[in-house]
Amino acid sequence: MRSALIPDVIIGRLPLYLRALSQMGREGKEITSSQELGERLGISSAQIRKDLSQFGEFGKQGTGYNTQYLAEQLRRILKVDRVWDVALVGMGDLGRAVAHYGGFLDRGFRIVAIFDNDPAKIGKEVGGLPILGTHGIEGEIRRRGIRVAMLAVPAAAAQAAADELIRAGVQAILCYAPTTVLVPEGVQVRYIDPVVGMQHMTHYLP
Amino acid sequence: MRSALIPDVIIGRLPLYLRALSQMGREGKEITSSQELGERLGISSAQIRKDLSQFGEFGKQGTGYNTQYLAEQLRRILKVDRVWDVALVGMGDLGRAVAHYGGFLDRGFRIVAIFDNDPAKIGKEVGGLPILGTHGIEGEIRRRGIRVAMLAVPAAAAQAAADELIRAGVQAILCYAPTTVLVPEGVQVRYIDPVVGMQHMTHYLP
Repeated sequence: MRSALIPDVIIGRLPLYLRALSQMGREGKEITSSQELGERLGISSAQIRKDLSQFGEFGKQGTGYNTQYLAEQLRRILKVDRVWDVALVGMGDLGRAVAHYGGFLDRGFRIVAIFDNDPAKIGKEVGGLPILGTHGIEGEIRRRGIRVAMLAVPAAAAQAAADELIRAGVQAILCYAPTTVLVPEGVQVRYIDPVVGMQHMTHYLP
Repeated sequence: MRSALIPDVIIGRLPLYLRALSQMGREGKEITSSQELGERLGISSAQIRKDLSQFGEFGKQGTGYNTQYLAEQLRRILKVDRVWDVALVGMGDLGRAVAHYGGFLDRGFRIVAIFDNDPAKIGKEVGGLPILGTHGIEGEIRRRGIRVAMLAVPAAAAQAAADELIRAGVQAILCYAPTTVLVPEGVQVRYIDPVVGMQHMTHYLP
């Protein structure tokens, strides 16, 4: 796999292709085309063919893609042909919603440890897991070998929490806090900030 | 403003600049530099200077940027020098968390109407607003002139809900449902799918 040479923007589209292919699989559709995928995703078929060609030959000219095979290949490339244990830090409204969300497991992620610093919350259960105190983050994450975390703490607490997660061995952080956290080389961080998305759109509104 | 000529990827970074500048403002910092902004955001100072230069001359060589002035200009460019009324559809765990979130108003958005199709939820209050039935979406949105919406419904319900919002006049949709919705030309849609972000990261994990 030549992924080190593949532009990040292409890697970023693969989860969308995988999501659409999984949906097609659930619909019982065995074969698809770059045209059909493109229509579902609002992406041009030429772009999809070009993106997928970076990783090899997944379809046959004229016969399209086998949805299950292509999905398997994308899972392998994205490394979600396994299930990643995930730590979730922050049990406010959003953290609870994330903890209750049922859509992680069949896409490669399983929340296995949840943390909050509020003594009133520690020990209670959310989504079948006990809320652990944040003082236990480092030990628990190290013990379980957790490498992926979701951060649903207030902006002011995000950097310190990220630092602690990284010290414990976390290498990929999905940050829901409306701020930027600085991470060392080799640690991935991506953001979920709904306002950033909305401000991006309002720029274009007449 | 020459925004029609400005690459979308640049527009997409402006909300991050604005967020960092607002944070600096809260810290009482009156002047900043592209270096300092870059360090906070993990973006190169050259990139920041280049991005901002698309919109005119915001700083003086050698004296940096006035944080308040630059923030005001970015708010104007992003059209959040006003407050947009927002409709929120879907009152599951995530919709409730979004409705309770206190961070929208000072960044240009105010949720003014919330909808769900569950008769057991309709009429109850969330975040000070009554939950309205989805049958009322079109009338309510039209009556209030709402142009921005957040969609927190299950994937299977997202396209129909988006269609209804758009019929009622919505022009920008932030979609939390893990699916792609197809929208007509002139309607913006952006997505929040945590799994897409996490799969993007796991690709790079050793």
